[in-house]
Amino acid sequence: MIYDRITLPVNEIPKFWLNILPSLPEPLPDPIPKIGEKPCREKVLKMFESSWTKEALWQEYAPVARVRVPDEVLEYYIRVGRPTPLYRARRLEEYLRTPARIYFKREDTLPTGSFKLNTIIPQIYYAKKEGFEFIVSSTGAGQTGSAVAAVARAMGFKAKIFMVRSKYKSAPLRGTFMKLCGAEFTPSPSPETEIGRKYYSVNPEHPGDLEICAKEAAEWAQKSKFKTYVVKGSFFNFVVLHQTIIGLEVKKQLEIIDETPDVLIGCVGAGSNFLGLTLPFVHDVIKGKENYKFIAVRSDVCAPEINGEYRYDLLAPDTEGPLYKMYTLGVTTEVPPIIAEGLRHHFSSPILSYLVNKKIVKVVAYKEKEALKAGALVTGLENFIPAAESSYAIKAAIDEALKAKETGEEKVIVANISGNGFLDLAGYAQVLKLEK
Amino acid sequence: MIYDRITLPVNEIPKFWLNILPSLPEPLPDPIPKIGEKPCREKVLKMFESSWTKEALWQEYAPVARVRVPDEVLEYYIRVGRPTPLYRARRLEEYLRTPARIYFKREDTLPTGSFKLNTIIPQIYYAKKEGFEFIVSSTGAGQTGSAVAAVARAMGFKAKIFMVRSKYKSAPLRGTFMKLCGAEFTPSPSPETEIGRKYYSVNPEHPGDLEICAKEAAEWAQKSKFKTYVVKGSFFNFVVLHQTIIGLEVKKQLEIIDETPDVLIGCVGAGSNFLGLTLPFVHDVIKGKENYKFIAVRSDVCAPEINGEYRYDLLAPDTEGPLYKMYTLGVTTEVPPIIAEGLRHHFSSPILSYLVNKKIVKVVAYKEKEALKAGALVTGLENFIPAAESSYAIKAAIDEALKAKETGEEKVIVANISGNGFLDLAGYAQVLKLEK
Repeated sequence: MIYDRITLPVNEIPKFWLNILPSLPEPLPDPIPKIGEKPCREKVLKMFESSWTKEALWQEYAPVARVRVPDEVLEYYIRVGRPTPLYRARRLEEYLRTPARIYFKREDTLPTGSFKLNTIIPQIYYAKKEGFEFIVSSTGAGQTGSAVAAVARAMGFKAKIFMVRSKYKSAPLRGTFMKLCGAEFTPSPSPETEIGRKYYSVNPEHPGDLEICAKEAAEWAQKSKFKTYVVKGSFFNFVVLHQTIIGLEVKKQLEIIDETPDVLIGCVGAGSNFLGLTLPFVHDVIKGKENYKFIAVRSDVCAPEINGEYRYDLLAPDTEGPLYKMYTLGVTTEVPPIIAEGLRHHFSSPILSYLVNKKIVKVVAYKEKEALKAGALVTGLENFIPAAESSYAIKAAIDEALKAKETGEEKVIVANISGNGFLDLAGYAQVLKLEK
Repeated sequence: MIYDRITLPVNEIPKFWLNILPSLPEPLPDPIPKIGEKPCREKVLKMFESSWTKEALWQEYAPVARVRVPDEVLEYYIRVGRPTPLYRARRLEEYLRTPARIYFKREDTLPTGSFKLNTIIPQIYYAKKEGFEFIVSSTGAGQTGSAVAAVARAMGFKAKIFMVRSKYKSAPLRGTFMKLCGAEFTPSPSPETEIGRKYYSVNPEHPGDLEICAKEAAEWAQKSKFKTYVVKGSFFNFVVLHQTIIGLEVKKQLEIIDETPDVLIGCVGAGSNFLGLTLPFVHDVIKGKENYKFIAVRSDVCAPEINGEYRYDLLAPDTEGPLYKMYTLGVTTEVPPIIAEGLRHHFSSPILSYLVNKKIVKVVAYKEKEALKAGALVTGLENFIPAAESSYAIKAAIDEALKAKETGEEKVIVANISGNGFLDLAGYAQVLKLEK
């Protein structure tokens, strides 16, 4: 019997998240509170004090290598399907006629559709513990919003989700999911905030964008009569910390089958999906114990590590701070729409930027069509539909497997499947011209 | 730590399917080959000889209580996520303030979206083993078609799927999934068959129905230059046999947590999803070992066991046979459309009909809106989206839990979640009026 799905018993779920910060050869550059000021992480954290939890404020620069996962979070992780399977894509290997062994970490099996649950669960757990009364979130493609709506409801919170209007119009079903969960759902720009009205009053059908959307959520939270927690979907160190559950599970799973990875691959928007898989392995490389290769996969329309600069930049235009040291295309850059909306970030998280700058992580970029073709290939051969974002990671895994074929190496390739593509099917059809 | 997801190690997957036929107190009534003839199963099987596999012909009336699952099928089951989790819906229990314990068997975690894989995998495996060269299938809502397209591709077959045009028009994404898998996809009625042309020539946008669709598939298979296997989605004994993997896993999972079920619940189209969960438990009831309650859940627009008759009827209009003894609304009855297309069968399988007639299984029916409301409740509280069909089973589980609340009983309720509802979100929105 061949077991191509490597599971991990629920009681072996990792009990700690891995914090990479203390292991970095040099400290991560501090953010700058305001244009013209000097880097100072304390001042920046102060700016977040009212809208973040105390736990998040501490985790953002935790001075310890491991952070305990609360039991309630572990129980919740298990309910939604953690540990997720590690899956050997044997038919894809056969199709490619490669000597490489390809493993997929199956975050697509999580029930709200993506890996976002890994951070949304602890964030809302801490919010509850610290007396927050309301949850608000902004969302682009809707994967963060779906997870927020579901977890908030399950933990007894009312939630409000602002979703970029153009995204909602082109793919309304994630909005439907949030409404089903009972969340208050608001296309952005909306008439409900000052920043929203600026655009809404001129054009009630204004398409919106992620920055306006995030600002609306922040303003709404600030003005709310409830103590309101604003969920973070990616970018920040503490979000990345939560995602390391992915890679910690993979480590245990690879041990079970006695495999050592050669290459670890993930797609990148801001970076938490990629870092979630790779940081536990990056840790061993930094410590000189291992010599893995890491590939962060970008959309070619938006690859700041390739086409941008490593410098301090703002997170949103028309703000005065904070500024983070990161690869950026420039905060005002307009990025063309792609199906894999989750990859359309024009800067990357401080940790990923640092690792790319230190040449620990390599970055590649693919065109939309070649990525989605790889996703389609896997749908047929391995019988699950990867999220549009995940198809970029699959494309890179295929290319690595083909290189191994040329050299005859029995490479072990591990790629992170960030989510499922049920709600990306219309996008697949459009790009691959499947309609008749 | 609370473990609300009861898993089963992959090596403990059941190695045999359960065949209920030898355990029935009286033999299942034989089908009638042709109007006016006498019941004769051998003659009916003869009619299927060219389009069924030998294995299916044998399994349909297997004289043994257990049928071995081939290793290759077990390996495939494991790849797609079997054993599926048994899940305790603790937050639903808390919401209902019931002393009952509610368990969901999570067939929604299967990657093509539903439990259909359980039979499609062995069917296509046997077809390959027996030298078939091509796979054809008809599909309504598309859950069968999605599973067929994926498994056929993975096993190296070309496949052709006929899908009822009106279903494809109202919910095209399952069609997209099939195309992604590389299947030839044809809205029915099509110009490609004689029966299809009858309708297509008059109206190329003819909405079609399941019967025309099935006939097109059969005709196409018969005329094909390839030896073509026509997949069966439900109804037949051998399909039901394959689905017993569901209940056999549940038995082991309940043993692990030392629970004895009081009520077992599943939604019903033709019956394979409900029977898959319940037959291993029905077996124990027939043998006098246990005394479980079984509830088969119907849509109120289509409940032959409640509003129909138990008699011989045809499977499709304008045919002369075979006829099966079953609950039927009458073969020409028009059933209004509902979101849960999979429940729109106007007759039920011979085994289910028999068990209902013997009062071993109770049948209830719900309105669409009350069912989908139950599905929405679970989406929020338990963070996964049930298929529209599954929401009917959930509604019944909730009603049982509320009865237990009245009586104060600590009832153990097990309901089968037949599939996920990602591609039913538009239907949920329409019925529950979620759009703004």
